[in-house]
Amino acid sequence: MRAELNVLGISGSLRKKSTNTGLLRAALQLAPADLKIEIADIAEVPLYNADIATQGKPPAVERIVAKIAAADALVLACPEYNYSIAPALKNVLDWASREPGNKALDGKPVAILGAGGRMASSRAQYHLRQVCVFVNLHPLNKPEVCAHANSDSFDGDGNLVDDKVRQLVADQMRALVDWTRRLQI
Amino acid sequence: MRAELNVLGISGSLRKKSTNTGLLRAALQLAPADLKIEIADIAEVPLYNADIATQGKPPAVERIVAKIAAADALVLACPEYNYSIAPALKNVLDWASREPGNKALDGKPVAILGAGGRMASSRAQYHLRQVCVFVNLHPLNKPEVCAHANSDSFDGDGNLVDDKVRQLVADQMRALVDWTRRLQI
Amino acid sequence: MRAELNVLGISGSLRKKSTNTGLLRAALQLAPADLKIEIADIAEVPLYNADIATQGKPPAVERIVAKIAAADALVLACPEYNYSIAPALKNVLDWASREPGNKALDGKPVAILGAGGRMASSRAQYHLRQVCVFVNLHPLNKPEVCAHANSDSFDGDGNLVDDKVRQLVADQMRALVDWTRRLQI
Amino acid sequence: MRAELNVLGISGSLRKKSTNTGLLRAALQLAPADLKIEIADIAEVPLYNADIATQGKPPAVERIVAKIAAADALVLACPEYNYSIAPALKNVLDWASREPGNKALDGKPVAILGAGGRMASSRAQYHLRQVCVFVNLHPLNKPEVCAHANSDSFDGDGNLVDDKVRQLVADQMRALVDWTRRLQI
Repeated sequence: MRAELNVLGISGSLRKKSTNTGLLRAALQLAPADLKIEIADIAEVPLYNADIATQGKPPAVERIVAKIAAADALVLACPEYNYSIAPALKNVLDWASREPGNKALDGKPVAILGAGGRMASSRAQYHLRQVCVFVNLHPLNKPEVCAHANSDSFDGDGNLVDDKVRQLVADQMRALVDWTRRLQI
Repeated sequence: MRAELNVLGISGSLRKKSTNTGLLRAALQLAPADLKIEIADIAEVPLYNADIATQGKPPAVERIVAKIAAADALVLACPEYNYSIAPALKNVLDWASREPGNKALDGKPVAILGAGGRMASSRAQYHLRQVCVFVNLHPLNKPEVCAHANSDSFDGDGNLVDDKVRQLVADQMRALVDWTRRLQI
Repeated sequence: MRAELNVLGISGSLRKKSTNTGLLRAALQLAPADLKIEIADIAEVPLYNADIATQGKPPAVERIVAKIAAADALVLACPEYNYSIAPALKNVLDWASREPGNKALDGKPVAILGAGGRMASSRAQYHLRQVCVFVNLHPLNKPEVCAHANSDSFDGDGNLVDDKVRQLVADQMRALVDWTRRLQI
Repeated sequence: MRAELNVLGISGSLRKKSTNTGLLRAALQLAPADLKIEIADIAEVPLYNADIATQGKPPAVERIVAKIAAADALVLACPEYNYSIAPALKNVLDWASREPGNKALDGKPVAILGAGGRMASSRAQYHLRQVCVFVNLHPLNKPEVCAHANSDSFDGDGNLVDDKVRQLVADQMRALVDWTRRLQI
């Protein structure tokens, strides 16, 4: 029997009824039995400021970076704001990247999913993939999960209710298990 | 005689000795007489949260968005964090983009400059240019100002002391005057 | 009365029934009376090779570069192949950029449109916009024309038959007239 | 003893004294004993045209696609033309992607290196990485090889003569062996 994989889910949207956070909840529900997802709370993480960083990290930063460091893999829910990444998500990765030796992020497998407008968050996701190159995260290529936020795919509380997209999320979580096990060897 | 142009400079770096903020100070010093630059203070602008936005904008957001709306053009100092845009800069643009009719940003001319590591902030600047498409900002194509942050180009307080780069900044500010006057017609 | 604007349309797809070339034909039909579009034939333009370039440009290259240089503006139909620009389109721009002083492209206004799969050619269009920065083309921000190639929007010969997209193309051509006249001052 | 890995090197530059092809020659010389690199000749590959493709692939296309399909991994030398990918390189990948089931490219490990001007081909390399997402190539994150083409790093014939960059290429080839063996499991 293979060890359970512990995965941290981070949503770039801070609002309560976010469709992106809804995608993370769907991932949590639909993941294979050996993939356990915890959804992070990043509401208290302040904007990165190098002057603050040198004085000691704020507690909310300490907490999220420790959780990232402890995870076997990440699931990043990537909203698109104005054709690029939501600052709240990028900001958490920026804080995490400042650990000595990049040890919180280095070499971790990642699944990226997102909900957005016309292009379904894809423009933001490709920017996020470029970030992954430097911080040495290994994103899955496929399946890509690009959901339409303003559609019947989500209910009013941001829950994913579209069977096709739910299947895609389930497929992505299975792919993440395979990818993580390959990269852990 | 032509009217003075009022330009708002925004730096994506919050630290005191930032080289990116240093580029803005150089722009302010080297700008033609008819280009007046004010450097914005964005330290108090919180991360965008749609739930907060609907309750009324925080005062620091009100202030920065009003300044953006009043400016004839913007100068954006764009640090590169992990191959993309600094969240503090993107966040200000995201807040500004939520004005009804995008009236704070719509159609404004922009100069982009930045200091960074190996690729001198260029990777972040191209992401920022993609943001400009949606929010309908018109960035100058040339000259691009990509400075090396960890070099003799800056002193320990982040002041730009390299004559070649100072010339480039001066050229860019002249180009911004021309570009702004063309687009205002 | 204002002078007629002469615009060159270039499609990145070489196949006869291309939807991207269909978008150019729609642009030609729907353009305002003072915007005259010629659709270029680039089938004979060979792949750029610096060794050939120094020996003298091939005749097909001479012809297309002369047409680009003579145009007041460009309309680029941008297919998406594998999430980036079609080589046939990029190749023409690369040849044109080698003119002394970049005089064929320098400062020209551009409208970009495209038809593609899931993301409707948008990923390729943003790469093309980055190319425009260096060669100093000035693309319109809006309206963006991103059409779905595999849909009822086109007939079997690649003709654009969707009224909403036709309206968008007409709007873009009007915006191109305005943009060109502003930049020509 | 582990099986030899057969790798195909493809350079996006067609000129004889190309620094990008020079990087491939350095990779060939500096690769570990169990990594055997063949440098492809792509000079005869015509620009992709869907009408030609349906009539049967040209012989030069058949040859390069067969070599790609047979390789355990790829090394792509990526020149930067006008801030994006050289059409000759993109074109080969586009042809290869048209194999039924994407079987020529699907899942292959890739090392990307390049030589260029001011930003050392990096802008083109990030576009190429976006292409890899769709065609399901797995590029190495690190080390990135971004060499300055117009420098003492290369001799007049495009040979890489800079010891630091040669070390980086050697490191990348070792990383490619590790990455390929991990992904082959």
